Amino acid sequence: MTKNLKINTMKKVDYIIRADFLLTMEGGLEVIKDGAVAVSGSEIIEAGTFGEISKQHAADRILNGKDKVVFPGLINTHTHAAMVYFRGLADDLPLMEWLQNHIWPAEGKWMNEDFVSDAVELACLEMLKAGVTTYCDHYFFQNAAGKKMEHIGMRGVLGAGVIDFPFTGYAASAEDYFVNAENLIKNWKGHELLTPCVAPHAIYTCGPDNYKRANALSDKYNVPIHTHLAETEFEVAECQKRFGKTPVEYFESIGMLSERLSAAHCVWLTDNEIELLAKRNVGVAHCIESNMKLASGFAPVPKMLKAGVNVALGTDGAASNNDLSILGEMASAAKVHKAVSKDPTVIDGKTVLSMATINGANALGLGDKTGSIKAGKKADLVIADLNSPHLTPIYDIYSHIAYCMRPSDIETVMVNGKILVENGRTTTIDESDTIAKAREWQAKIRG
Amino acid sequence: MTKNLKINTMKKVDYIIRADFLLTMEGGLEVIKDGAVAVSGSEIIEAGTFGEISKQHAADRILNGKDKVVFPGLINTHTHAAMVYFRGLADDLPLMEWLQNHIWPAEGKWMNEDFVSDAVELACLEMLKAGVTTYCDHYFFQNAAGKKMEHIGMRGVLGAGVIDFPFTGYAASAEDYFVNAENLIKNWKGHELLTPCVAPHAIYTCGPDNYKRANALSDKYNVPIHTHLAETEFEVAECQKRFGKTPVEYFESIGMLSERLSAAHCVWLTDNEIELLAKRNVGVAHCIESNMKLASGFAPVPKMLKAGVNVALGTDGAASNNDLSILGEMASAAKVHKAVSKDPTVIDGKTVLSMATINGANALGLGDKTGSIKAGKKADLVIADLNSPHLTPIYDIYSHIAYCMRPSDIETVMVNGKILVENGRTTTIDESDTIAKAREWQAKIRG
Repeated sequence: MTKNLKINTMKKVDYIIRADFLLTMEGGLEVIKDGAVAVSGSEIIEAGTFGEISKQHAADRILNGKDKVVFPGLINTHTHAAMVYFRGLADDLPLMEWLQNHIWPAEGKWMNEDFVSDAVELACLEMLKAGVTTYCDHYFFQNAAGKKMEHIGMRGVLGAGVIDFPFTGYAASAEDYFVNAENLIKNWKGHELLTPCVAPHAIYTCGPDNYKRANALSDKYNVPIHTHLAETEFEVAECQKRFGKTPVEYFESIGMLSERLSAAHCVWLTDNEIELLAKRNVGVAHCIESNMKLASGFAPVPKMLKAGVNVALGTDGAASNNDLSILGEMASAAKVHKAVSKDPTVIDGKTVLSMATINGANALGLGDKTGSIKAGKKADLVIADLNSPHLTPIYDIYSHIAYCMRPSDIETVMVNGKILVENGRTTTIDESDTIAKAREWQAKIRG
Repeated sequence: MTKNLKINTMKKVDYIIRADFLLTMEGGLEVIKDGAVAVSGSEIIEAGTFGEISKQHAADRILNGKDKVVFPGLINTHTHAAMVYFRGLADDLPLMEWLQNHIWPAEGKWMNEDFVSDAVELACLEMLKAGVTTYCDHYFFQNAAGKKMEHIGMRGVLGAGVIDFPFTGYAASAEDYFVNAENLIKNWKGHELLTPCVAPHAIYTCGPDNYKRANALSDKYNVPIHTHLAETEFEVAECQKRFGKTPVEYFESIGMLSERLSAAHCVWLTDNEIELLAKRNVGVAHCIESNMKLASGFAPVPKMLKAGVNVALGTDGAASNNDLSILGEMASAAKVHKAVSKDPTVIDGKTVLSMATINGANALGLGDKTGSIKAGKKADLVIADLNSPHLTPIYDIYSHIAYCMRPSDIETVMVNGKILVENGRTTTIDESDTIAKAREWQAKIRG
């Protein structure tokens, strides 16, 4: 009778995902050994030990995880996805020479809906294969990006760029950026995967009126707002000169700081500014590899974390990185700040995986949907294979993910309950076709 | 008649290796498009365009390189290969706690010939798959390591460790280290792949008498000498206290500085010490990832390069990295120093690949054998696949190798004319057996 009762209470689910190690990134961040996640439709039904899960759930498909680890999909909180087509176009140059003589001219010449649509496909391909399930984009032509991402099945935040000056083919005036942004919001607000967002560029390209207007738009529709902030010493000096304030203090003075805001970089901050970011619950997209490659500097991440700032990770665009791997950012962030702060205990494995998952989700206002493995959240998760020389032996799984794991270890990626990468191959993107298209663009761009 | 003449002058070789891009790391570092390398026995016969090579050479086997790049095998100039078994055993800890409470006790308990032999197999597996063809090791039981490496076919420098105090099971007295080192030299001197080396540990574990004796041994047999130098501020302070000199100046005063010496780390240097390293032609093994992870600091690499110091790259042991990837070190070194020096032009793609190849060979006294692709040198080279999303598009091949390439892109690895990795799989190491052995050790070490 007890047996029958058990059978009767078994719930049918679509998948049970089993693994030697399950990291939910919830609670005390305990490692669940021989763990399992039950998934139905787009949702996580339950997570726990395989013993617990298999007693209560029967699945159509069990993904069996010998020598595997399951963790939440990685979140890239700052990129310019379409710039992947400019990867390596101009490296090892001073920032302004890079921007003015290479990147801006290339963008001015090539950027349009087709470019963005094709380039975003390559970016999604690269990110999915590296375990990234959500990214926040800061660019233009976001309707085209959104359509492509919807087709692929990737989760994302579509930041519609706003700058003070016109951009041929996209915005004839500052006004047009807002028209485009509002249309984007109307098109995508409430979408299951994609969140529209207002994305004023930076203090040096966007004046206070446009920042305030962007913020009002974000407030009106309750959508996120995303910007670059305090990236370089040059920017801080310019801000001081124009407004008599450092960047975060200037933002505070014009009412920009809120939990809707996520700010990329935040390299040059005073202690007071760190306090402000914590107090106003602003999400920070720490882009360590871009900050190093462009010689911007080292953001005070250990200090920010200590002050309670929600610090997440971003790759920035591939033109200044040069890849879109959050695993790479994790390894860099976990190591660099030890040397900068002369303290080997800062940013341990657990911390950096939190930054790459739950902190990222919270920074983008998606904490209720993704970023951890928890009943009721969307099923965005990664299965990585541990059966490799560079992951052998295993004493601490968090440490392995932080310091040793590579995109090639990512085996299966699920977004919103759908498998988008299986045995390392994308299911909704034709890899060779995407690469062939990119090479056609390359031939044109190189000229 | 002209045609017959051509046929008659065709030289028979074992391999012609063809690739879209050939980087010889010789001369002006020009990229040879549609390049080829002719290999016979252990040697490179010629390198040039495929057109030139195929006119003069006929091969038993042509390795065809559509979407491929060929470059010299990478050189890891400082590691403790057997410590791969302690990968991730204790992370994110202060240096002395890490060493005294975790690493030294583990070494004291487990290290013996069997341990070293098995662990070196895992290290070689990881390094070969990541394109490393030569490494310089600093450890103990180097006869066991050498036998294993000889069996695998890997090139290396076997540094026999020397410290002032006894080490149970290896050396009952300081004297024993020298006996072991001299035996090692006698065993391996003149070997095709393996170079014996004397490896006094560091200023804080090895007094001036033992340093001088190690140097005399190196001089007597004309073998390299390898040590840790100026790794931490603590070491510099101790050296000042004991000898009234900074580490490199102290080395100069006891006659240690010569072209036979390669020194790992060199993080804390005065301008005068940089001059000395350049003047005495000392090779420097820059270990940026280990230096960051242990919070040692940032070596003044751009300054060293400018002063003419021969700076190469090393991973250090996997316990402080946590992998053995020179590609990873290249990406880290190329990025970190831009931020440290606030100059995005330092250490470009060509420079960092030079550091990982020809500089490494020269640092280890192997510049006549390896480090570049040149007629007469040994055939140590790598074929990497470029047909991946993260390597698309391609504008600058050096930049791609520096910033984007991953171990999983390494397809074929040749050492001394023998293919040791083919389609990403090792030919002389059974990967699953090596991993299984490592897991048995892991179970014992974890206890």
